[in-house]
This record gives sequence, structure tokens and C-alpha cells, in this order.
Amino acid sequence: MNYKYYMPTKVIMGKDCIVKNSKLLKGLGKKALLVTGAHSAKANGSQADIIKALESEGIDYEVFDKVMSNPTIKCVYEGAEFAKEKQVDCIIAIGGGSPMDAAKGIALLAAQDITEDKLFSGDYEAIVLPMAFVPTTAGTGSEVTQYSILTNDKAQTKMSIATELIFPKVSFLDGKYMEALGVTTTINTAIDALSHSVEGMLSVKASTISDALAVESIKMIMECVPALLKALEKKDTSVITLGMRDKLLHASLLGGMVIAQTGTTAVHAMGYSLTYFKDIDHGRANGLLLGEYLRLVEKEQPDLAQVIIKAMNLNQVDELIELMNTCFGEKEVINIEEINRYAHLAIQTKNINNCLVKPNEADIKEMFVSTFLK
Amino acid sequence: MNYKYYMPTKVIMGKDCIVKNSKLLKGLGKKALLVTGAHSAKANGSQADIIKALESEGIDYEVFDKVMSNPTIKCVYEGAEFAKEKQVDCIIAIGGGSPMDAAKGIALLAAQDITEDKLFSGDYEAIVLPMAFVPTTAGTGSEVTQYSILTNDKAQTKMSIATELIFPKVSFLDGKYMEALGVTTTINTAIDALSHSVEGMLSVKASTISDALAVESIKMIMECVPALLKALEKKDTSVITLGMRDKLLHASLLGGMVIAQTGTTAVHAMGYSLTYFKDIDHGRANGLLLGEYLRLVEKEQPDLAQVIIKAMNLNQVDELIELMNTCFGEKEVINIEEINRYAHLAIQTKNINNCLVKPNEADIKEMFVSTFLK
Repeated sequence: MNYKYYMPTKVIMGKDCIVKNSKLLKGLGKKALLVTGAHSAKANGSQADIIKALESEGIDYEVFDKVMSNPTIKCVYEGAEFAKEKQVDCIIAIGGGSPMDAAKGIALLAAQDITEDKLFSGDYEAIVLPMAFVPTTAGTGSEVTQYSILTNDKAQTKMSIATELIFPKVSFLDGKYMEALGVTTTINTAIDALSHSVEGMLSVKASTISDALAVESIKMIMECVPALLKALEKKDTSVITLGMRDKLLHASLLGGMVIAQTGTTAVHAMGYSLTYFKDIDHGRANGLLLGEYLRLVEKEQPDLAQVIIKAMNLNQVDELIELMNTCFGEKEVINIEEINRYAHLAIQTKNINNCLVKPNEADIKEMFVSTFLK
Repeated sequence: MNYKYYMPTKVIMGKDCIVKNSKLLKGLGKKALLVTGAHSAKANGSQADIIKALESEGIDYEVFDKVMSNPTIKCVYEGAEFAKEKQVDCIIAIGGGSPMDAAKGIALLAAQDITEDKLFSGDYEAIVLPMAFVPTTAGTGSEVTQYSILTNDKAQTKMSIATELIFPKVSFLDGKYMEALGVTTTINTAIDALSHSVEGMLSVKASTISDALAVESIKMIMECVPALLKALEKKDTSVITLGMRDKLLHASLLGGMVIAQTGTTAVHAMGYSLTYFKDIDHGRANGLLLGEYLRLVEKEQPDLAQVIIKAMNLNQVDELIELMNTCFGEKEVINIEEINRYAHLAIQTKNINNCLVKPNEADIKEMFVSTFLK
């Protein structure tokens, strides 16, 4: 029994938790940089709540709202320059995984000079701007992880800054910001969270703690799936209640706590290419591949696969694959040349070393083929 | 859904984890104060491992080995004076709950002046000496909590310093230091950990996270119980393997993570008097009362009581009471006047406010009577 547990972020959850707990922002700094995407933080009320809380604590702020989906290295360097120019001393991220992951890179780069070739090296000084996070989707778990996933055009994939420095100091979770999320985003992000918890259980770093959280998270997400499918079928999100939004947010929090301990596995490794080359949403990419990877795991570790399938309240891996097909509808067209290329990229990622059942390049190719060509 | 999760201590677990991870001590300071009891840290190898790690990192140290069982307020003021005199800048606690809880008080009092009447007020400056912890019993969970439980002779009970400041920076968990623990201590501490996890599930602050950890912890302890009973019967600890020591240590870690979120309940509130006035070991006191409290809970929340009993792999509360009787043998003699007094003290503790099912003074009296006079 050898392992480490570490997740130092303070998590505050509940309705209006930002405004009610504004004093927690007090210790962060005197001038904050709000890091967001272009629209949703303004539309869903989260940015307004943060501003209200900052004003009540007498904290000044600037806004950097230029984070795109799957943020680039260029974006975080730009944000860091802006942070330095405006002399902010803390960062507040509001949004889905993209603004949150970008904010971590910005917080690091605003505090110390790191050249682009060293950005993913892990070789940093122990300084960073303190951060508060407000997730406005329920999937990434970035609010409780030490990862900043950025698009690296040179490497033609996503890569991770992974350092304990970039755990946020505090994260505020309030499902009300998710009420206007569309069905597709809600499903994609929920399945991203599901993938985190399942992959955590399939990691060499899985522990009693991460497994206990993962099983709860899987159960919570699966309890919401019938309503998600109904919303998809009726094209109407009103069947997704606020209570369900909170549950999905809670489940994604647990999924984040899981991968903070375990990292992700082959599913994420493979999914990155789908996102980079085919612009397939991250959660959707994971969901499309999850069942095939679990099928591979089942061959070597049938008991473990069964524990996961049971936590999902299913009986066999095929049912998970069917369910994902129902969630995601028609699949993208991908040819065998593309698959060969993606398999070759996936096998080189760090995520593969995390796998309890390590696929080889042929296995990875086979999983892509089963997903897209059968 | 309203709650907070916070447990910022880095936990390192595994054989020889102190020496293998000595670099984690590097950031704590330049001169450490080792806080221990009189004997066990020297006898079980933990102090030698810490010294080896400190020396390999070039960190100087002093030793304060005057912590008694159920440490007093006087003891922590004395330790803090010694820390200031020796100009240490960090604290390393080695031992069971007593040295660990004392070390937290010392770390706080060495960094700031707090008068005795303010010691339990929660009103502190945000400074403390950084701490590393090495538990050498598997029960308290103090290595991952924000509590320092001290004996307050003026109030004739134990009282808690409770502040996020006193979470240790890092805790090292290695079951090998427990190999020479006697049967009685092993059982008492295991049941203390069991009580933490059960009480966590009975707290108003219970959450999905704390419940998930509590259930795992309860299962792990119950898996060790047959061996503990065998060791008790044969008066031979050799049936308690190193793997089992690790499991108990792991379970007590989870129990600590649970109460860091939930606090403890009526069981601890009642147990404090048994320890203060009758010198009954803390874990034993909790164990003797746990079944009676669960019986009270069962009347109002039968489903919750069943979840806990099932996690123990038992069928009814009576079986838990029987099991505790087997673990603890003949009970201490306590008369009705004493019970009245203890009930009156217990009802005034903060722990009662944590109870999902709040006992009144008559209920508490009845639980004592059922435990000691029937």
C-alpha cells in the first residue's frame, strides 16, 4: 500500500454560495483578474455574483474574457501579460474547463517567467497567483485539480501543466449557473465527469479514497441520465431540474477529486486527437471511447470492470456502449489513416502510463475502429 | 445541498515513506521541534526515521518528549515556551492522538500569543508553525484534522481548539510503527476510528464525500475485527499482520478525513467525561457508548442506522453492542450520581449540535444507564 492523497482546495457548495462566502475572497489579494470566456459568465449570473462579492470585500478587478474553447498556449501567455500589465495579485476563473484551465496557466505565468519550451516541464518556482474558481459547467472537475490542459499546436494535441501549485485556493459550486445550459453541453460535460470517475478506477494510482469518491460520482451521474435522455429526445431542458444540476455538479466535483489523485487514462489519451483534429467536444470524445476501453479492461480485469458496470446500474459493457450511442447520436466520419495517426499519438501520451490495463498501439487502433468504423 | 469540503494536508502512505520522502520536510523550516510522548516514538523506530530524514535534508531539531496521555493545556503552553526558547520554525509530531493534538496547540502558541481564556475561542491570527505528523497508533485521525483536543481542568472535560490553521502540512503513514502495539491499545484505537466514521455519518454536516469515506473506513475496520478478537483471546498480537496494521491505519486516516468535515457527535460528548473522571481510554469510552447512541438514532432514522449496520456487515444494533462488549470485557463501575453529572456536562458540549438525531439530557442519561447499569 503506497500512495499519496492531496487536494488542498477549499470547496464551498450551495445556492448563492459566492455572495454568502465573499469573505473567502478577502485573503486572495487586492486586485483580481477575472478569467472567462466571451459570453456565458456574463449571461448566467456567475460574473455578476463574483463582482458583487468582490465589491463587498473592497477588492478591485479587471476582466480577461478572451478564453476560447480548448484554450491555446498563446491564450495563456496573452492572459498572463494582461495580468502583469494590470498588476493583479489574484485570479478568479469563471466558466467551464476552458476558462478554468487557462486561468491556472495565467496564474502561473503571471507569477514567474516560463518559456514555452518549459511550459509542460513541471520545473517551476514555487510561486503562483492565488486563485478562486467558479465552474459553470458540470464536467471538467478543474476546480479541484492540479492540471491545466492546453492545446499545443506544435505537438498537435492537448498537453497538461501538472503541478500542485495550481490547485485553486477556493472553489464555489452553485448549480444555478447551469440552468440555461443546452442539452448537448449538459450531456457532454456529464459524460466527461463520468469518464473521470471511471478512468480513475482504471488507473494504477487508484486508491480506497479515489475509488470511494468515483463510485459515488458514477452513481449520481447515472441517476441523472434518464432525465438527460428525456431532455435530448424532447429537445427541452426543463426536465433537468435545479436539483439535478446540483447533483451533476457534485458528481463532477467528485470526478475532479478522483483524477487529482489518479490522473486520466487511455480514454483521454485517445480523445485528445478527436478534439484536436476533428473538433469533437472533449466530453463527447471521452464518452464515445469509454465503453471500448472498458471492454479491453474487462478481458484482463473482469471483476474491476463489473464493479464499474454495477456502479452504473448496468449489467454489461455493451449496455454502456449502447447508452453512449443514444447520448451522442450519429458519429463523426473518421477514416483508417486518421485512426492510425491518432493511435500513434495516443500511445505516446503520459496518460497511457496511468493505465492499470495498458493498451498497445494495436489495441488503441482497434478501439478507434470499433468506435468509428463498425 | 450546502456544504464545505476542506482537508489540505498532504498524506503520504507506505513502507518507509518518511525516509523515501524526506524532501517534503525541506519546505517546513530550518529547525524542527519533535513533539512526542516519553517512550513509544523512540521504541517503534518512528523518531529514528524522522531524524534520519531531517539529517538528510540538513534540518536541525530539538525534542520535546513531555506529552502525557490526554494532554493538558499546561503541557501545550510549556511546549510552546520550549519551542520559542529553542527558536524552532516548524513542528514534527510523532505518536498517537496525544502528541499530535499537543503538537497542534504548540504550533499555534509558539507562533502567536493566546491567553488561556482565549485558547478555545477560535479567535486567532492567521499564523502557525508548519507541521509534519507521524501517527503511531491507528485511531485518532488527528494527522488530517483541524482539531487539537486538550484536557481543560477548569471545565473538567476535554475541549477542542478547532481552526483550519492547524491542519498539518504533511502526514506520513507507515504501519510498521504499530507492530509492537499491544492488543488493548490496538482495539481501543481501532474502535476510536470506527466511532469517527460512524459519528460522521450521524452528523448534520455529513456529505456524499464524508459518507463515502466513512463507509469504506467502517468496512476496513470490521474486516480486521476477527483478528483483533483472536489476538485478544490468545493474548498474542502476532495474528495482527503488518497488512492489517496498514489497513487499520488507512481506516483511521479515512475516519479523520470524515470528522474533519463533520465533527463528532453525542458519543464523543459523553465519552469525554468517562475519560476525564474515570480515566477510561478515549477509544474504549466511545466504543462502549456507540451502540447505545446508534439505538437512539435508529428510532428516528431507521434507514440511516441500517446503512451503518450493513456497512459493519451486521444485521442489528444489538450485535454491535455485543461486539463492543466482547472487545472491551468487564466495564467500569459508575453510579447514578456520576451519570447525572456526566449527562449534564455532555448536553452542554458543542458536539451535541452536530447530531442529526439530537439527544436531550434524559436520553444521554438513559444511554449511560444502559451502558453501565443494565
